[in-house]
Amino acid sequence: MRQTFDDHADPSFGRKHLPLIRAEMAKQGLDGFLIPHEDEHQNEYLPDANERLAWATGFTGSAGAAVVMAQAAAVFVDGRYTLQAQTQTDPELFERRDLMDGGVTAYLETAAKAGQVIGYDARLHSPDALAPLKAAAARAGATLKPVEANPVDAAWGEVRPPQPQAPVVPHALEHAGEDGAEKRQRVGEEIAKAGADVALITAPASIAWLYNVRGGDVIRSPLPLGQTLVQADGRARLFLDPAKTSPELRAWLGNSVTLEAPEALAGAIADLKGQRVLVDPAQASAWYFAELEAAGATVVRAADPCALPRAAKNPVEVQGARNAHVRDATAIVRFLYWLATEGQTSPPDELETVAKLEAFREATGALRDLSFDTIAGAGANGAIVHYRPTHKSNRRVKRGELLLVDSGGQYLDGTTDITRTVAIGEPSSEMCDRFTRVLKGHIALARIRFPAGTTGSALDVLARASLWMAGLDYDHGTGHGVGSYLGVHEGPQRIAKAPNSVALRPGMIVSNEPGYYKTGAYGIRIENLQVVTAAKPIPGGDRPMLGFETLTLAPIDRRLIAVEMLTPDERAWLNTYHAQVAAKIAPLVEPEVAAWLAEVCELI
Amino acid sequence: MRQTFDDHADPSFGRKHLPLIRAEMAKQGLDGFLIPHEDEHQNEYLPDANERLAWATGFTGSAGAAVVMAQAAAVFVDGRYTLQAQTQTDPELFERRDLMDGGVTAYLETAAKAGQVIGYDARLHSPDALAPLKAAAARAGATLKPVEANPVDAAWGEVRPPQPQAPVVPHALEHAGEDGAEKRQRVGEEIAKAGADVALITAPASIAWLYNVRGGDVIRSPLPLGQTLVQADGRARLFLDPAKTSPELRAWLGNSVTLEAPEALAGAIADLKGQRVLVDPAQASAWYFAELEAAGATVVRAADPCALPRAAKNPVEVQGARNAHVRDATAIVRFLYWLATEGQTSPPDELETVAKLEAFREATGALRDLSFDTIAGAGANGAIVHYRPTHKSNRRVKRGELLLVDSGGQYLDGTTDITRTVAIGEPSSEMCDRFTRVLKGHIALARIRFPAGTTGSALDVLARASLWMAGLDYDHGTGHGVGSYLGVHEGPQRIAKAPNSVALRPGMIVSNEPGYYKTGAYGIRIENLQVVTAAKPIPGGDRPMLGFETLTLAPIDRRLIAVEMLTPDERAWLNTYHAQVAAKIAPLVEPEVAAWLAEVCELI
Repeated sequence: MRQTFDDHADPSFGRKHLPLIRAEMAKQGLDGFLIPHEDEHQNEYLPDANERLAWATGFTGSAGAAVVMAQAAAVFVDGRYTLQAQTQTDPELFERRDLMDGGVTAYLETAAKAGQVIGYDARLHSPDALAPLKAAAARAGATLKPVEANPVDAAWGEVRPPQPQAPVVPHALEHAGEDGAEKRQRVGEEIAKAGADVALITAPASIAWLYNVRGGDVIRSPLPLGQTLVQADGRARLFLDPAKTSPELRAWLGNSVTLEAPEALAGAIADLKGQRVLVDPAQASAWYFAELEAAGATVVRAADPCALPRAAKNPVEVQGARNAHVRDATAIVRFLYWLATEGQTSPPDELETVAKLEAFREATGALRDLSFDTIAGAGANGAIVHYRPTHKSNRRVKRGELLLVDSGGQYLDGTTDITRTVAIGEPSSEMCDRFTRVLKGHIALARIRFPAGTTGSALDVLARASLWMAGLDYDHGTGHGVGSYLGVHEGPQRIAKAPNSVALRPGMIVSNEPGYYKTGAYGIRIENLQVVTAAKPIPGGDRPMLGFETLTLAPIDRRLIAVEMLTPDERAWLNTYHAQVAAKIAPLVEPEVAAWLAEVCELI
Repeated sequence: MRQTFDDHADPSFGRKHLPLIRAEMAKQGLDGFLIPHEDEHQNEYLPDANERLAWATGFTGSAGAAVVMAQAAAVFVDGRYTLQAQTQTDPELFERRDLMDGGVTAYLETAAKAGQVIGYDARLHSPDALAPLKAAAARAGATLKPVEANPVDAAWGEVRPPQPQAPVVPHALEHAGEDGAEKRQRVGEEIAKAGADVALITAPASIAWLYNVRGGDVIRSPLPLGQTLVQADGRARLFLDPAKTSPELRAWLGNSVTLEAPEALAGAIADLKGQRVLVDPAQASAWYFAELEAAGATVVRAADPCALPRAAKNPVEVQGARNAHVRDATAIVRFLYWLATEGQTSPPDELETVAKLEAFREATGALRDLSFDTIAGAGANGAIVHYRPTHKSNRRVKRGELLLVDSGGQYLDGTTDITRTVAIGEPSSEMCDRFTRVLKGHIALARIRFPAGTTGSALDVLARASLWMAGLDYDHGTGHGVGSYLGVHEGPQRIAKAPNSVALRPGMIVSNEPGYYKTGAYGIRIENLQVVTAAKPIPGGDRPMLGFETLTLAPIDRRLIAVEMLTPDERAWLNTYHAQVAAKIAPLVEPEVAAWLAEVCELI
């Protein structure tokens, strides 16, 4: 089985590791040290070797930070991880603070004293992330100083796992849809338009996309860790650990790309003297900026030129996503059938739920990986937004409770991500009211048409309004971008309360996942992926509009819907959606599953 | 009558004035000169003396710019003013370009040549506005240079009108609701929090608010033009033309304020050596920044500390707004009654419409000014978003057409702004469909509840979704902030597509004005003002929400509503609204008007 239920860290980590870190800090004359969750590649998922925050504190969430001072320390997490951080870290060692509300900057302003020197590893912070931290330290009269050697790495020593060396392999044109050399030509033109001669790109997803390759350095995303320099004429240098490359890869990359070892990057940067080098200050680490400036290059700060073309999938990728979703749906529908039959008579626990769903996905024969560890939250565990079941937290769902299952698969032709919430036994009327409000939000965001130029932030309220009207809300974004056999969380587009200036474009895949969480009781989330399309011309309309095509195909639990709360338009959307699910998936599953599917997809 | 129907400028202005401006440019060795619409006070409405853009080009809109080169010139306007700029400027002299899409920066990149020097008047540009222009000139190899003397002013010469000298008078506590000294204490604390010793404030609306005074330097807004320095301890220096002051004003300002002549400002800035001075780079002009830096002060760039407290009205101001809206509604309801009776039998022209409405407002006995020139757009003129009727453009409304009337009044206790669209004769079913979609948007934005932290940008889609679903939209913002007997367009909050990071707070007044415009045919807009309030606790809800209280009280033309397109919730909102209008206004108007009002406010 791919998913495990072990805890990778525990609250004793702080007591064991903080003294080692502080000793290394003292050697370097540091009064404090910043430990971000981010690693050298600014990824969401890290190789074990780069789980510095977990090693230092015990906290294993996907976002956070710590500050270690000589006599004090604090760990910073966002609202999703408040509970988790409390159980994973030692309260005697770490003050727990909110990552968002002032966060590290507010802490530095009071914890740092005048004249103190706080170290940071410039490889782990983007300039955009670093700027407010520097300003906060300055307000306290302290200084942030880049370190030569990371005290955490020094303290971790020989027991630190090695860096991953998974092979980097071609991603076939039948899935990528555009030749790599053509992509680099196109990106080169963007680099020239931005006024640069060359771009330094460090985002693994951009590297994977730009060269039509996939790797395995990071769990759950087929990413190759590396760096690349792309010239305005499309020629490029790709820096990858030779242990990860092969003659096949060399041939695949073609003549316009040189494949080099990571050690050659420093020299390549030194060669950029006098050139205008595009780097993304939100993505590449501060270390690159310092090296480029030291080399005498002119840094052009601009967005990663691969980000937008990667996000706006081409027709082959969109068709791949459709195919992946049909395949994934056969697993999901079998799983939901199992939950509706055996699951109702003898309710499973969370671990059994995860194992069963993984087995159904595995049975498709095409699963390359999960796109993330499945969240199966029974009853109260469903209210923990970023819950991951472990042996310790495992809970059996009881009759009258809800089971929330958020999961996805990585396939060569696409990445999926779906959440369904299922009632075990009879749901309460409150549950149905809340579920229906979440559904109304989901439908509003699925049906909307919008003019070119509209951002995800502008649409977010559609998914929340029905909850807001009842004095309810959810504390997470409504939708994230999704890669094409790449990261399941991919920018630059996003549907969320926070302002985001990236307009939605045809081919962009986003999730639509409003929810409602009642602490200690239950969680509800309904998530489909949808792709931005040019909407069909609307009779009587006077401007072209964009819209969404829903990719995910699985029934929504009708026993949780208070039908009288839906408008005729909302009912029509749901009936059309369910009819599509039945038409596309019933022919692909066993007769008894197909019969059940037809039943749960009937008109309401 | 307050409103006039004359054109203040015409296309001949360019031919008469450009040569004079170019001669002055040549004297100063300039290859080009920037002429923004903004004046020294960065106001929306300008005194005649500062209408430099109109004098140079003939264009009289409320936003725009021109660039004059030796051999070429361009005028830049946004989508609202495209048609107007075409009729008001000479095509042989001015290229007409879009202010938004690249705008002045794109023009500079191609029109300016390497080595050229383009002048600008640093008093007329904020640093935020100037930065992209400087960058664009640099890309062309040209330089932007601040001038000592503005070539437009020099060319204008003796026929330029004098600067206004309207008396500055106390704004009574019964309307302001908070003592001026208390305001300055509060603002002083914000200045200290921002890390500054003193703030230089140049926004006339902020000065009016901070000192509880009103002026008359600018038409349609009771603004005093001046500058002020406010210390962190609340003590302040106010710079006003002595011709505008009086012993009464001096007494009103109290002991903590010194009243000085504008000539003293330069010396006061020189005295700030070594101090940390807060200035708003989006509001104050670049000239102040240069002077402060030359004086050896440290500039702290931060938002005008009066902007948020001014926008979030106190309970006295909110009650004042309610009272002003009831009073204004008596004029509006009488006007609508006149339109529904005489207006239907012998349809008026636009000028008669404006005069009639102004007379009804004047008859309240409390009108201090219009809050802007009334827009009365008959038929196709209604589709011109920022239309202002003139003798030349005047049109009589025909049966089967729509009449759009957007107007407002300035009263001591509040500023109003209302748009109603009325059918003269029988409206088409298309008009009713469009009107109902606009109404659905208006209602969605009036009814919504939302959590603290929500911005106007996040709510904008609510007003547009019903149009978007039909392939329709409108090219203006949905809502602007409104002052308290101050500017009818007031920031920093705004409801629009463009991102805005200012959260809506209780006491903020915003307009709710979706519309639909069919070029050459008709325009529809429904506008009420509404104030942000803490919504009543919602049974079953688990978080506090904010909401809106509608201030504007006037019936919405039911003959234009396709009732079957409204949901039960929308009908309930409209019926409740109309019941309030009838209950509050009917007792205040003549019996025949009251009877008509009761009828048009009946349940639908």
